[in-house]
Amino acid sequence: MTKRPTADYVLAEHFTFVRDQSLALCAPLEPEDYVVQPHPDVSPPKWHLGHSSWFFENFILAEFVEGYSRFDERLNWFFNSYYESQGPRITRSSRGNMTRPALSRVLEYRQHVDKKIARLLASTHQDLAEIESLVELGLNHEQQHQELLLTDIKYILGTNPYYPVYQKRKNTNAGAVPIAIGTGSAVLTGSTVTRQLPVPEGIYEIGHRGDDFHWDNERGAHRVLLEDFRIASRTVTNGEYLAFMEDGGYERFEFWQMEGIEWARNLDVKAPLYWVKKNESWCEYLLDGGLRGLRADLPVTHVSWYEADAYARWAGARLPTEFEWEVAQRMHGAPVSARQNWVERGSFHPEPARPIKSGQNDPTENFLGDTWEWTNSAYLPYPRYPRPAGALGEYNGKFMVNQMVLRGGSCATPQSHARPTYRNFFPTDKRWQFTGIRLAWDGLS
Amino acid sequence: MTKRPTADYVLAEHFTFVRDQSLALCAPLEPEDYVVQPHPDVSPPKWHLGHSSWFFENFILAEFVEGYSRFDERLNWFFNSYYESQGPRITRSSRGNMTRPALSRVLEYRQHVDKKIARLLASTHQDLAEIESLVELGLNHEQQHQELLLTDIKYILGTNPYYPVYQKRKNTNAGAVPIAIGTGSAVLTGSTVTRQLPVPEGIYEIGHRGDDFHWDNERGAHRVLLEDFRIASRTVTNGEYLAFMEDGGYERFEFWQMEGIEWARNLDVKAPLYWVKKNESWCEYLLDGGLRGLRADLPVTHVSWYEADAYARWAGARLPTEFEWEVAQRMHGAPVSARQNWVERGSFHPEPARPIKSGQNDPTENFLGDTWEWTNSAYLPYPRYPRPAGALGEYNGKFMVNQMVLRGGSCATPQSHARPTYRNFFPTDKRWQFTGIRLAWDGLS
Amino acid sequence: MTKRPTADYVLAEHFTFVRDQSLALCAPLEPEDYVVQPHPDVSPPKWHLGHSSWFFENFILAEFVEGYSRFDERLNWFFNSYYESQGPRITRSSRGNMTRPALSRVLEYRQHVDKKIARLLASTHQDLAEIESLVELGLNHEQQHQELLLTDIKYILGTNPYYPVYQKRKNTNAGAVPIAIGTGSAVLTGSTVTRQLPVPEGIYEIGHRGDDFHWDNERGAHRVLLEDFRIASRTVTNGEYLAFMEDGGYERFEFWQMEGIEWARNLDVKAPLYWVKKNESWCEYLLDGGLRGLRADLPVTHVSWYEADAYARWAGARLPTEFEWEVAQRMHGAPVSARQNWVERGSFHPEPARPIKSGQNDPTENFLGDTWEWTNSAYLPYPRYPRPAGALGEYNGKFMVNQMVLRGGSCATPQSHARPTYRNFFPTDKRWQFTGIRLAWDGLS
Amino acid sequence: MTKRPTADYVLAEHFTFVRDQSLALCAPLEPEDYVVQPHPDVSPPKWHLGHSSWFFENFILAEFVEGYSRFDERLNWFFNSYYESQGPRITRSSRGNMTRPALSRVLEYRQHVDKKIARLLASTHQDLAEIESLVELGLNHEQQHQELLLTDIKYILGTNPYYPVYQKRKNTNAGAVPIAIGTGSAVLTGSTVTRQLPVPEGIYEIGHRGDDFHWDNERGAHRVLLEDFRIASRTVTNGEYLAFMEDGGYERFEFWQMEGIEWARNLDVKAPLYWVKKNESWCEYLLDGGLRGLRADLPVTHVSWYEADAYARWAGARLPTEFEWEVAQRMHGAPVSARQNWVERGSFHPEPARPIKSGQNDPTENFLGDTWEWTNSAYLPYPRYPRPAGALGEYNGKFMVNQMVLRGGSCATPQSHARPTYRNFFPTDKRWQFTGIRLAWDGLS
Repeated sequence: MTKRPTADYVLAEHFTFVRDQSLALCAPLEPEDYVVQPHPDVSPPKWHLGHSSWFFENFILAEFVEGYSRFDERLNWFFNSYYESQGPRITRSSRGNMTRPALSRVLEYRQHVDKKIARLLASTHQDLAEIESLVELGLNHEQQHQELLLTDIKYILGTNPYYPVYQKRKNTNAGAVPIAIGTGSAVLTGSTVTRQLPVPEGIYEIGHRGDDFHWDNERGAHRVLLEDFRIASRTVTNGEYLAFMEDGGYERFEFWQMEGIEWARNLDVKAPLYWVKKNESWCEYLLDGGLRGLRADLPVTHVSWYEADAYARWAGARLPTEFEWEVAQRMHGAPVSARQNWVERGSFHPEPARPIKSGQNDPTENFLGDTWEWTNSAYLPYPRYPRPAGALGEYNGKFMVNQMVLRGGSCATPQSHARPTYRNFFPTDKRWQFTGIRLAWDGLS
Repeated sequence: MTKRPTADYVLAEHFTFVRDQSLALCAPLEPEDYVVQPHPDVSPPKWHLGHSSWFFENFILAEFVEGYSRFDERLNWFFNSYYESQGPRITRSSRGNMTRPALSRVLEYRQHVDKKIARLLASTHQDLAEIESLVELGLNHEQQHQELLLTDIKYILGTNPYYPVYQKRKNTNAGAVPIAIGTGSAVLTGSTVTRQLPVPEGIYEIGHRGDDFHWDNERGAHRVLLEDFRIASRTVTNGEYLAFMEDGGYERFEFWQMEGIEWARNLDVKAPLYWVKKNESWCEYLLDGGLRGLRADLPVTHVSWYEADAYARWAGARLPTEFEWEVAQRMHGAPVSARQNWVERGSFHPEPARPIKSGQNDPTENFLGDTWEWTNSAYLPYPRYPRPAGALGEYNGKFMVNQMVLRGGSCATPQSHARPTYRNFFPTDKRWQFTGIRLAWDGLS
Repeated sequence: MTKRPTADYVLAEHFTFVRDQSLALCAPLEPEDYVVQPHPDVSPPKWHLGHSSWFFENFILAEFVEGYSRFDERLNWFFNSYYESQGPRITRSSRGNMTRPALSRVLEYRQHVDKKIARLLASTHQDLAEIESLVELGLNHEQQHQELLLTDIKYILGTNPYYPVYQKRKNTNAGAVPIAIGTGSAVLTGSTVTRQLPVPEGIYEIGHRGDDFHWDNERGAHRVLLEDFRIASRTVTNGEYLAFMEDGGYERFEFWQMEGIEWARNLDVKAPLYWVKKNESWCEYLLDGGLRGLRADLPVTHVSWYEADAYARWAGARLPTEFEWEVAQRMHGAPVSARQNWVERGSFHPEPARPIKSGQNDPTENFLGDTWEWTNSAYLPYPRYPRPAGALGEYNGKFMVNQMVLRGGSCATPQSHARPTYRNFFPTDKRWQFTGIRLAWDGLS
Repeated sequence: MTKRPTADYVLAEHFTFVRDQSLALCAPLEPEDYVVQPHPDVSPPKWHLGHSSWFFENFILAEFVEGYSRFDERLNWFFNSYYESQGPRITRSSRGNMTRPALSRVLEYRQHVDKKIARLLASTHQDLAEIESLVELGLNHEQQHQELLLTDIKYILGTNPYYPVYQKRKNTNAGAVPIAIGTGSAVLTGSTVTRQLPVPEGIYEIGHRGDDFHWDNERGAHRVLLEDFRIASRTVTNGEYLAFMEDGGYERFEFWQMEGIEWARNLDVKAPLYWVKKNESWCEYLLDGGLRGLRADLPVTHVSWYEADAYARWAGARLPTEFEWEVAQRMHGAPVSARQNWVERGSFHPEPARPIKSGQNDPTENFLGDTWEWTNSAYLPYPRYPRPAGALGEYNGKFMVNQMVLRGGSCATPQSHARPTYRNFFPTDKRWQFTGIRLAWDGLS
């Protein structure tokens, strides 16, 4: 599952870097912020720090270090997430009730694990190749949790009436002016033009090839037959989404899936998550700067699949399938690079798409980073997908029902964790991830 | 959407036939059975009789009969199922609380509608072609409700501790002997051999072509690329399923989707719906004969997608996609005919598959009728699917999320309503329909 | 527990009379009305008919008739209400799902039981005295269920949008004119004057004495010390209650118990049960005549304890305790007689109180019949109350927590079942009984 | 409502003492422990610290300090508990999601309020008498919250699988040996003998007289008539309760209220809260020493009213009414003193009753402190109780329904806050307070 480290890729260094990054993301927190679980989907930051350490201890140290005795046997119960094969575990929704192990104890646990793993990587263990492979898996696992860590922190802070600031505003998003309610359409003026990028009918290959790191669910390269379609050169903006809202979008059932409009009615959803009406203006809570006036040219984010789907229908378009997305990205998009908005940039919020001039052939950066993009593909196995045996087989294979695929990565995704073939997946009502909307259309024109 | 009636296809006659069939299915009921709703998914038989009449009144009589005044304005509220565009309506789960309109009144309503529609079909109305098309739509709609009527009646009777008999046992299923618990595997001996029918890689066309009646969701013929696979010549039997149960199938998480095993745990599901332990033997409730000893060679039915998926994994196989199913049926199956077990046969339960001798090329009848077969395809739009505008656009298009496709039709499906391209769909936890399991395998051998 | 029958009190005749009365109350129903359970508190009329028969079969026939074999063993499961000692039983909220035993079967069951009981009463059984005592108990039990039967029928019909008429309007309540909304206070003009009846401080005896029939919970005559108080000569009217509503009564928390105002908010309660706004007027659903314009001089009914308590506080008064009520009734009220509005009158709705002229000493009839009156006493055992052993000990003693006492009987109570010492009890949120409000004040003036 | 401070009672000193006590109770906590809410009834310690400060700010500073500007306007929303008159507030069950205001900020808030109140008490404010009265109210309010603080802390720690120790075991409870399961009766040998203290029939006065501090709900001294009864000289012990459990107490419905046994079944309750089975022995979690072997002679605590009521019936006794309790305490008990187990003793757990030798006339200390004792009286207003107007009228008067009265105070109650007339009240299913069981019997012998 992994490429062996080469001269310029030292696994031990990467291990240290990734592990430190988890702590760095927590640096702005108050002690209280580490503990709570304001929504069952949100795990306490303390839990993420413990669980990602448990992953290394449980699947590497306990397996490969002779006579290894666990740091604390009871932690298995606290920090096992969902591995049926690894014994009983805390009910997911109770994570926020557990004040112990205290943060200080969890940090000790991390240090313990880090030291042991470092020692193992520096050893001449007979199974070193397998260990390295598992360490790489563990780091990708930790990077996934870093993304959750950020979105969970955002939920903890962004639903608190104090709207605490996670970091001072960076100038990338300067110049926001509040949008007076009822003027959604007006602010569209001047927004970036969207181009419709064409993809002709054909048989295309899908899925990951090669032996660099990737998840089991994206493997199984196979061909699909696509018909002519066009795809938007950038994702939908706040201003555009506001126009949908002001056009009665949330009430007009003709745009919605039945299940979607009932979801919106039952929960009284009328705007994306983190949009707050203050006086007569819309504000948006950002990790970057806290509660700020809504800026029309920022990509809309924190929408459910239901909202994305309804918006697309309102706009006379549709969501692309994950296959269309992958092919279009390969055809029109740039490869993964630091030019895109990944977590390393530290803005922690999607940024306005840079315009692509019509007629120009420059690849667009916008497919990657910024927001995960909802597709109209259900999360199902690729052909010939074998659910791996053993504990790690529980990683992806047992979630393949009633979820939709998202593609592209977000401003909370580590760059080294991103791939155009990466299949993310969430249930259709989830909004706390950085999710966005890219439109598609049938035919070439 | 419809082919004009020809000499041997007289719409008015068909109208009478289909409408009468709804009443015939209710003939064995006691007055009490018409009223209740023991599960939110189950509608009272009285409601089905009213709703299918309302469909004709609302979409045809009210639209095309000049000066038409409704039989009773208030019925709109009672009998609108889910059409947002047709005004407010009763909460679905309250249908079983409504003792009025009484059955007698609903039957008057049916007669009123029947007479008016008959008169319209015999008229020289300027929009007769459109009316005929809508009548055909309404009849297909009623046939769908006939299937629900049967399964809802089965639920009402089959969850009553008296296990009332719907019809006396027909001899088709004679000879059942109760299976002593713990002997599941033994009874497999002698069961029909399953053949694995091969389908080679290729580009195949999917979806409905032609102008005979079909639903919007199956239109949009298009090509898909399939890889080599094999598919079972018959669906899984009770005996085979019992072997899964006795092998700890419901407890062994490695076979299940996470969501599925939690569903089974929460609801304490340990066997298909309508399986009842009596003394030391398994019994099964059938519309045909009531509670009877479980017969090993009958197809297993009333299983959820979760159970179908887990069974397949236990059996070292997988569920086919709806595309694989459709191609395999066309390649190996017989066309729709009275040789298959449709509702017209009146056995109201799936029957044992007739064996296909190895090496023989006779098409199998087993793809069609008996049970709907769960596929591993999510219910999503075909390429270029346009959600129709207007009220009838709500028919299929707004349910395209978080459901799985079923294919093939069941012993409760009217033959004239069946097509190999027919896409049925239900959420993954539903069991009260006649649902079954067909296995598939990767590769040609 | 019972007085032996005397010459003018023939138990067998009374048995026939009471049993027939249950059927008579059901006479206006359609077959459908017998089956449903639109609220967990409401039992299907069919169930009441079966359960009251089961009581006789289970506690008398099965006990005293040698070699008695039950009509149908399975009925025990259907018709046991809550007797833990009598084996497993249907979940209460599932009664409305049981279409079988059908009504016809339940009626056969009644006839069977009636015949057997009649034979037993005419016999020279050695335990005849005990049997007679139990028959009297069973008849009082059936009379309680007759009251529930009426209120359950009212719920079934009165929450149906057709508002079916149970009986044609009797002239007792003639002359109702709809009250335009917003004119609550105005209609008060001309309503009956309420007198405040004084009761001086003293030690009073409470509870039932004597050996005529009574329940265990009212036995245990004992003394209580009461302080000076006054009590209203009649219960609160619709007009008065409307004035409370129009004064913002449901929104002003200062009148409410915390639990009460949260109940009203959560369920969006803004008026008594069965009050319906139609165009610009209030209507009330009555068994007597169906949906009719609200009449200001009728007693308000179908209010919860929460509403009664809040109304009293708004009116500058309070609810009486059950002890105050019992003493005041004895001092100022008339004894049980046909002059009061019991079920035998057949109006099935409370009637306006006849005025008592100030200064006059005539006893008021209004304490008895019409509506049960909420008191501010919790339902708790009287001193020295022993919970009876055996099955019948479950009758009252295990419900003595978190309920409030009601006194006086209602228009749905059989006269022969009424006593001033009768303690009825319901949870504080229940409204489907004929419940009303009588005010009290501290001090003698 | 208050007695003016005298020479030996300096309010300002008392203010400082009580306020410091709240912080002292939190001293053993980790930062994480301040934040969570593992049960809706449990408030985060941080919230108690803020709310008790808000009470002083909102009802005193904001009212009496001219030009007072609040420390932080937003805190009103966080720290208003249930005062409808004081504006909108956080949903109670969301308190545990609020990481901000952080503890450090709450502590600043406390200091701010303390300083301002101290200044006010030292001033010559024209309303000083009223202010002093309100400060005394606020201190009693804070003392109530100190008791909740302790029980909430116990819940947070005692439901954590680490069972963190709040304080090292004091020697008062030394010598505990685990009780092997199944030996409940055996350990009773040697336990303290209970005496049955007689109270003869009579008219007794109930309620608080005098002008020292007391709550509105205990005022309204009035007479009640009691019959002969006996009351236990001490509360029920762990050993006695275990005998009930081992006699099938939780399964035998004849001992229970219907509502109670359904509560126990639904929640799978089989022992008092904080009893944990470990290997083959029962353990109990104590604030004093953490998880320890169950000691038979300790008073049983953390039982619901349902359990207390069922235990009493099993033991052939009953619970006393609150009137019986108050009279018996006055007749047989000692006055409030440091000889009883109040929070000041710092053992934070009930202690074994000291034996009273038969025939001896020494007053028992056991009525006061140790555990609150469930009575069989519903929490209802005393005669002539006027619900006070204004915000503070919401304090007690709006909770007078569906709760039961507890008497006597507990090991978590401050001594200066205790009175024999004190009426505590909780719903019948609550167990996280230090609740216990005292038996009573009818008659004098």
